[in-house]
Amino acid sequence: MPLSAIEDQQILDEIVGKVEAISEIEPGRYAVRIALAAATVGTDPGQLINMLFGNTSLQDDVTLHDAEIPEELVRGWGGPHYGLAGLRKRTGILSRAFTCTALKPQGLPPEKLAELAARFARGGIDYIKDDHGLADQSYSPFAARIAAITEALGKVERETGHRAHYVPSVTGTLDAAVRQITDACHAGIGTFMVQPMILGLSSFHRVVEANPGVAFFAHPALAGASRIAPALLFGKIFRTLGADAIVFPNLGGRFGYSPDTCREIARTALAPWHDLEAAIPVPAGGMTTDRVCEMLDFYGADVMLLIGGALLDARERLTEETAAFVGRVKDYRYG
Amino acid sequence: MPLSAIEDQQILDEIVGKVEAISEIEPGRYAVRIALAAATVGTDPGQLINMLFGNTSLQDDVTLHDAEIPEELVRGWGGPHYGLAGLRKRTGILSRAFTCTALKPQGLPPEKLAELAARFARGGIDYIKDDHGLADQSYSPFAARIAAITEALGKVERETGHRAHYVPSVTGTLDAAVRQITDACHAGIGTFMVQPMILGLSSFHRVVEANPGVAFFAHPALAGASRIAPALLFGKIFRTLGADAIVFPNLGGRFGYSPDTCREIARTALAPWHDLEAAIPVPAGGMTTDRVCEMLDFYGADVMLLIGGALLDARERLTEETAAFVGRVKDYRYG
Repeated sequence: MPLSAIEDQQILDEIVGKVEAISEIEPGRYAVRIALAAATVGTDPGQLINMLFGNTSLQDDVTLHDAEIPEELVRGWGGPHYGLAGLRKRTGILSRAFTCTALKPQGLPPEKLAELAARFARGGIDYIKDDHGLADQSYSPFAARIAAITEALGKVERETGHRAHYVPSVTGTLDAAVRQITDACHAGIGTFMVQPMILGLSSFHRVVEANPGVAFFAHPALAGASRIAPALLFGKIFRTLGADAIVFPNLGGRFGYSPDTCREIARTALAPWHDLEAAIPVPAGGMTTDRVCEMLDFYGADVMLLIGGALLDARERLTEETAAFVGRVKDYRYG
Repeated sequence: MPLSAIEDQQILDEIVGKVEAISEIEPGRYAVRIALAAATVGTDPGQLINMLFGNTSLQDDVTLHDAEIPEELVRGWGGPHYGLAGLRKRTGILSRAFTCTALKPQGLPPEKLAELAARFARGGIDYIKDDHGLADQSYSPFAARIAAITEALGKVERETGHRAHYVPSVTGTLDAAVRQITDACHAGIGTFMVQPMILGLSSFHRVVEANPGVAFFAHPALAGASRIAPALLFGKIFRTLGADAIVFPNLGGRFGYSPDTCREIARTALAPWHDLEAAIPVPAGGMTTDRVCEMLDFYGADVMLLIGGALLDARERLTEETAAFVGRVKDYRYG
């Protein structure tokens, strides 16, 4: 919008974005700080990302590096229902890292997924999340998957006393996601995974808001290519909209995030920020049991380690491999 | 998922993705063709993008270049309700390019926006879309905007016989978008703009499906940075989900799309594809009236030209500038 086309002085004063600072970071590369009017966002999360990076995403030499979000917006959205402290309390896992694995491959029917889940649970795992590729597919419909897996995990709990928490992935439209959560809550599930960039940020927050007793894992699907700094998108935006735990690609796995990027994501997710609960960092992607100590050295105790394929690759020894993973996390000397 | 962890032969045969071809395009850069099982998508648009580029978006050296979408999915989603042919029929604009402008700046109250709309309409413009920054903000709530603008445009129509079509931007959650469309349809609006990458692809398609009499403009907000080829995302995916017209950054404006990219977007949107209606290409972003002939030389008649800020910049001569723009489009000698 050409400024010369704006006749209203109040809009020029109060609504038009203002360049507050430009500094050269390195030759030809600049940090630019722009002030936007909070009134342009209202209270809609989709409109937040629209104002921050809607059209600017079309400029292929611009990266959204960071954003300060007004206190009243952050407090209004409210952040995680549980977060780190709440999930520690809910699970009784007070001082160590959490463990997590993933159910896959796609194509398995519900009873086979339930069988895998039971074997993970017998190994003592804390959380079992759906692979992010599992949706409401014909070979494994959501409702049938929930029923089979909750039954299998209930049986393990009755036999061993250990309760593994199943985290199904909710997908589709807002309506479908809400329906899936309602149905699964009736079956006793209390934690769900969402892909905020595919569901849409506004709908993600609506899902969180509509389910106050529930904890949410945010999955980064489609988020990686957005030229939005991951620490901002995951550690601030996903968190302020309600992610209790944020899954992201760990360094040295099959994705390309650097140690600095990973450290910054974890730091931002956990840092005190507008009195929100902290979100638990969940580094993942090609992780293996022999990297547990290295990862705990790097992240400390306030982390959830997620190993999926490498445990499944143990096949008939899946329960033992899971127990070995869990054992390493429990036995680690937290500093 | 390590293949060695998959025990089920049917999954290995029918579900696991298959690398069909790898060819070196230039030193160090490869085109890789991968076959995915349609069953992994089901019929959910969000799951389509999840399978195509969910986790792969996290690989920062990979671009999603193109995709063939199975006939049954494309036909099931159904594409544009009107498309090029339908909007030509609905508007009576049979052989020339369409004209469009944008209402802004943000911060104007509904009556001021309505006044601008009326002046555009007196200049003979075909479509007046909301700036993509307009949402349901306190200074211009959606319902009040709709009421003021439809009244103003109705008055111009009664006085001049010319009907300009207002295209409000619908935002927020799926529920909010559906409510906005329902209310605006009652006020006589028949065309809406959606930002599919912010609303979420699944919800975008649900909005389209729920409103069979309505035409949709797709806006590229947040889509630019996704390392998904624009011709695929706009010309195929947005189109198959129901976009009648697709807004994209034109070459030589304030965004960086190349002539080849723009030509490919327009070509893909218009090309015969699975019997879908063609979507109208809407190049935009810093366009001016003196570029009309050049743009029509480039795109031909099957296009909608969108000039926003440059018309608004004429201020008291807005109606005359609009008429000059419309005149150039009408007088152009289409080949």
